[in-house]
Amino acid sequence: MEAGGSLAGDVLLGQPWIPVSVSGCQLLAKSWFGETTYHILLSDLHSVWEERMDAEAIQIRAKDLNKRLQAPVKAFFSYLYEVVQPFLSGDNSGADSKAQISLTKQEGGNISIGLKSKLEGLPFHWEFHCIPAPVTLVCVQLVRPLLAMSRLLQQQVDQLGGLLVRKDAEILDYKENGATLTRERLQTDVFEEHTFRQDFMAKALPLLCAERPDVLGFDADLQRLYGAVVTHRTARKRKLPEERVVEELQTEGAALSSSPAAKSVGVDTAGDDRKQSHNGQVDEAEAKTASKQTVPQSLAVSSEPAERPSTKSKKKKKVGLFR
Amino acid sequence: MEAGGSLAGDVLLGQPWIPVSVSGCQLLAKSWFGETTYHILLSDLHSVWEERMDAEAIQIRAKDLNKRLQAPVKAFFSYLYEVVQPFLSGDNSGADSKAQISLTKQEGGNISIGLKSKLEGLPFHWEFHCIPAPVTLVCVQLVRPLLAMSRLLQQQVDQLGGLLVRKDAEILDYKENGATLTRERLQTDVFEEHTFRQDFMAKALPLLCAERPDVLGFDADLQRLYGAVVTHRTARKRKLPEERVVEELQTEGAALSSSPAAKSVGVDTAGDDRKQSHNGQVDEAEAKTASKQTVPQSLAVSSEPAERPSTKSKKKKKVGLFR
Repeated sequence: MEAGGSLAGDVLLGQPWIPVSVSGCQLLAKSWFGETTYHILLSDLHSVWEERMDAEAIQIRAKDLNKRLQAPVKAFFSYLYEVVQPFLSGDNSGADSKAQISLTKQEGGNISIGLKSKLEGLPFHWEFHCIPAPVTLVCVQLVRPLLAMSRLLQQQVDQLGGLLVRKDAEILDYKENGATLTRERLQTDVFEEHTFRQDFMAKALPLLCAERPDVLGFDADLQRLYGAVVTHRTARKRKLPEERVVEELQTEGAALSSSPAAKSVGVDTAGDDRKQSHNGQVDEAEAKTASKQTVPQSLAVSSEPAERPSTKSKKKKKVGLFR
Repeated sequence: MEAGGSLAGDVLLGQPWIPVSVSGCQLLAKSWFGETTYHILLSDLHSVWEERMDAEAIQIRAKDLNKRLQAPVKAFFSYLYEVVQPFLSGDNSGADSKAQISLTKQEGGNISIGLKSKLEGLPFHWEFHCIPAPVTLVCVQLVRPLLAMSRLLQQQVDQLGGLLVRKDAEILDYKENGATLTRERLQTDVFEEHTFRQDFMAKALPLLCAERPDVLGFDADLQRLYGAVVTHRTARKRKLPEERVVEELQTEGAALSSSPAAKSVGVDTAGDDRKQSHNGQVDEAEAKTASKQTVPQSLAVSSEPAERPSTKSKKKKKVGLFR
């Protein structure tokens, strides 16, 4: 019933939503790249789009877009990943300076993201053809996590309010026994939850709504919380021992890493680790190293099995060279 | 571009999501009833369904389902509202004891909610035919408000954390000057935000995920916040003077009332007020009175103009009796 309920879907669920800018258009992006497969989600918070591609589909489009290019799909994919990942991770600083990316909204609600670069001195073209995502996927990837996040944050607000009331009781006890402050500026007002909420809302709501409409607002704190919620849910679904889940959640930043989610669903995350670092941005050094390792191997016709079998590509026949 | 961007859509946006149970199925429901039109949304957080009906469509279905029934669409609609609203507001206590409601999941992803009751001693049948809602509507009604709620709650968490740090500074000043507690139990630990968050997550996440899957968790606090966010956004869109919006937001419970949203979009909310009270539940007394007022008027063939013109019915031709 759930979109993204598959193994690959669970791994994608563990990825953060990252604010990205593609030719001036502000989007939230979420992506998972396997061995020779990918699944990307994009949203402007008015619509949600996705594209899932496997080795065979990538090979066909690669050949169609790059007539003169002769390369194994694995080499092509590795380069595609290296070029596109900086964009998808919101970190354009590390992007291939020769690469150009463009977004086209098409009739029927689809969007297309075009990519132009060079591989081995030859023009390199790619297009992501993203179609509107089904509501079930939007529920899995956005609605349920956001509702869970809101509940957790509301609980935190309640607990912090309770702590403030206890602090005030402690302060009152000191005062009633004649204690005075040496520095008047340290004096605080007694906390009153209802008044706090009303004042907060009166100030915060206008600011929230005065923002430019393209501010999508999925900031680092919310990304961390999102990661914690979905990682934990995925882990539960896979019946991971409770103590291991808690341990992972207690690791600072673990929430945002794709590793816990991937581990929890039993996927070798060597690739994911290099592709998504804890702050949701590409680790350039690792990415480049990884690519350097991968490209030469696969530029030669190689029939060696993939070191990191991906969930989909296993089912697909491997083709060494475009024919 | 926005589903629900219409006047009626804005009024619906201002309604709360209410947990309801229909033949054992837990759903979130959101509904708006006009003069002789309605728009309902239902979600199990895996899918979202909707039905929008205007006077003409209601009249056709009413005649089709109730062959022997002779009544003006306005009288039929008023009774339909009276029977169904307790279910849609999650308050079955006030529901017509003779009324039976049933939910059927159909092929193609649609759901149908059947209603059986009696009107003037005759069998009264109604069916809500809900189809999957478009992603744009899910974004408007769930994703964007939930993200805004999360941001506001995160800001509250940050502000409360800051207040706790100031309380600790005040407490420290008292202690450094020799103040002691008369009651040891009033002693509090120094607040450390990072530790608090980690402890909270380690405790709260397992509880959240251990819940029965049908717990949808849109509780009263979140409903209030949802109402504040969407009411404010609607008000902004309609360019309501800032001070009036703030004033409305500062009114306790105003967030959950359909009135501010409706007022802000310039709709006479006499009907909405009676239909949705501040805690998101039907005010039975008002509802019964209102129905008593409405039904007799409209049981007589009446060509008087609607006291509360609804956005859609205005465009539709009015028919006094089924033909």
